[in-house]
Amino acid sequence: MTTVVALGGNALVRQGQRGTAAEQLANLREALPALAPVLQEPRVVVTHGNGPQVGNELRRHERAADEVPPLPLWLAVAQTQAEIGALIESELRTIADRPVVCVLTHVRVDEDDPAFAEPTKPIGPFHSEEEAETLRRERGWTMVADAGRGYRRTVASPAPLEVVELEPIRTLVAARTIAIACGGGGIPVARREGSLRGVDAVIDKDRASALLATELAAERLLILTDVDALYRDFGSPAQHEVRELSADEAEALLPELAQGSMRPKVEASVAFLRETGGEVVVTSPAALEDALEGRAGTHIRP
Amino acid sequence: MTTVVALGGNALVRQGQRGTAAEQLANLREALPALAPVLQEPRVVVTHGNGPQVGNELRRHERAADEVPPLPLWLAVAQTQAEIGALIESELRTIADRPVVCVLTHVRVDEDDPAFAEPTKPIGPFHSEEEAETLRRERGWTMVADAGRGYRRTVASPAPLEVVELEPIRTLVAARTIAIACGGGGIPVARREGSLRGVDAVIDKDRASALLATELAAERLLILTDVDALYRDFGSPAQHEVRELSADEAEALLPELAQGSMRPKVEASVAFLRETGGEVVVTSPAALEDALEGRAGTHIRP
Repeated sequence: MTTVVALGGNALVRQGQRGTAAEQLANLREALPALAPVLQEPRVVVTHGNGPQVGNELRRHERAADEVPPLPLWLAVAQTQAEIGALIESELRTIADRPVVCVLTHVRVDEDDPAFAEPTKPIGPFHSEEEAETLRRERGWTMVADAGRGYRRTVASPAPLEVVELEPIRTLVAARTIAIACGGGGIPVARREGSLRGVDAVIDKDRASALLATELAAERLLILTDVDALYRDFGSPAQHEVRELSADEAEALLPELAQGSMRPKVEASVAFLRETGGEVVVTSPAALEDALEGRAGTHIRP
Repeated sequence: MTTVVALGGNALVRQGQRGTAAEQLANLREALPALAPVLQEPRVVVTHGNGPQVGNELRRHERAADEVPPLPLWLAVAQTQAEIGALIESELRTIADRPVVCVLTHVRVDEDDPAFAEPTKPIGPFHSEEEAETLRRERGWTMVADAGRGYRRTVASPAPLEVVELEPIRTLVAARTIAIACGGGGIPVARREGSLRGVDAVIDKDRASALLATELAAERLLILTDVDALYRDFGSPAQHEVRELSADEAEALLPELAQGSMRPKVEASVAFLRETGGEVVVTSPAALEDALEGRAGTHIRP
């Protein structure tokens, strides 16, 4: 059994937190013990997002730019893999009884991906309308309004095509090492003059996780997020959890789901299911134990 | 044959450069092709320093501290492993015909190491005497004068005791993957309440590389630096390259060598030689080809 676990949202930085190392360690200390039964399995890969962290890192680069050279976005993504990987390792080592290792992971994208013409991935802090206008003008950033919370920079989020370090990851999990990989969706690279070169983008971590799960022929993709399960009629009196879905039903549900939140998770899940015949479980760390026994979470099967 | 190659100095950032990504890529493009014959060997690990990069990263953290939380030094070291690892991979992939992977590497140190009481490792930019006094007073930093160039912050540089990710690195190199590991001397961790926790220090990369080479039972440790070989009577008319040394001769030479430069390289080399019976070659990337054929560099043997 190979399981890919995608850690998101509150497991790292909670709403209202600034993303200190202490906050992230405390959040992980709360979230990760739920993974104990999964860590008993022979082959496990943990992936994670990096939204707040990559935003913080880019601000650091900008603020110090008059003194030390800012690094390009693709290297900022790399930096967050190390930051978050080291934090996850720090906590995972206390509950896993075997080696844990974070693999710096590049993911190939296509420079002709239409996503580069239309940046959709929000990163970094919220800005006022006035600040947003200045950033648009002075830095050429694409800024979009986020319902009621202000404006955020958006960057291209191209489709992940290939996990560059697939073979090393496979080698490690075959040796029963728990691998942390594809952090923040992976460091985006594109083929240029015969070699792979960093490109400035942020790949969706759920899409990258589903690609990795597919390439590893994983039997299970666990997507850990802030809600216990998918809901239908969310926010209305008729709101109810969806316990089971077929891939076709999941696909039909897509238009109902929040863009930038549940929709990419379910889209990625469907892509994985169609390729592998595996299973996807969408749930929260708190509900994971019940979800593994079929009593919570949303289970999507081919 | 297992070879550990330690990349230092000009291979990444040259004197007078600020450490942009473009500069580092250009320097690597010049230095790394010399490794081609080494990359034919079955088991290769590449390590590297992070002096300029960790200094830059800490400045980014400080400058943005009023807006985004600064990360502790041990996570800044992690960030430089990813930055530099991604840059090395980018160039190494163009000359290696097999998978290359960067492994986030932690190195265990002892919190009772006397190094913590006496910080000796200079990191980051040079400061004037007045700035140095302010930083001493306001941040509690240890500042030391660097001959003629100003004052630098110094941090603890404890002895590396154990490469935490040794097993995964061994697994990868056994599968003929070229591993980049122990970047910047490794992320320092210490055992606290039964688990390994990050501690703020910067481990000497040559000591960490020698430890890794010893633990891997490597046959060869290549230390690539800015000079072609060790010199005796350096800077005097009698200056001459040392082509061969025994471990005993190397040890006797230590007092002559520059602290913080050649001395830790030779000290680390001697430690590796005593444990393994392997060979150490100290040379520059430009002289590496000749050095591998015994016509350049300094070769130290048990």
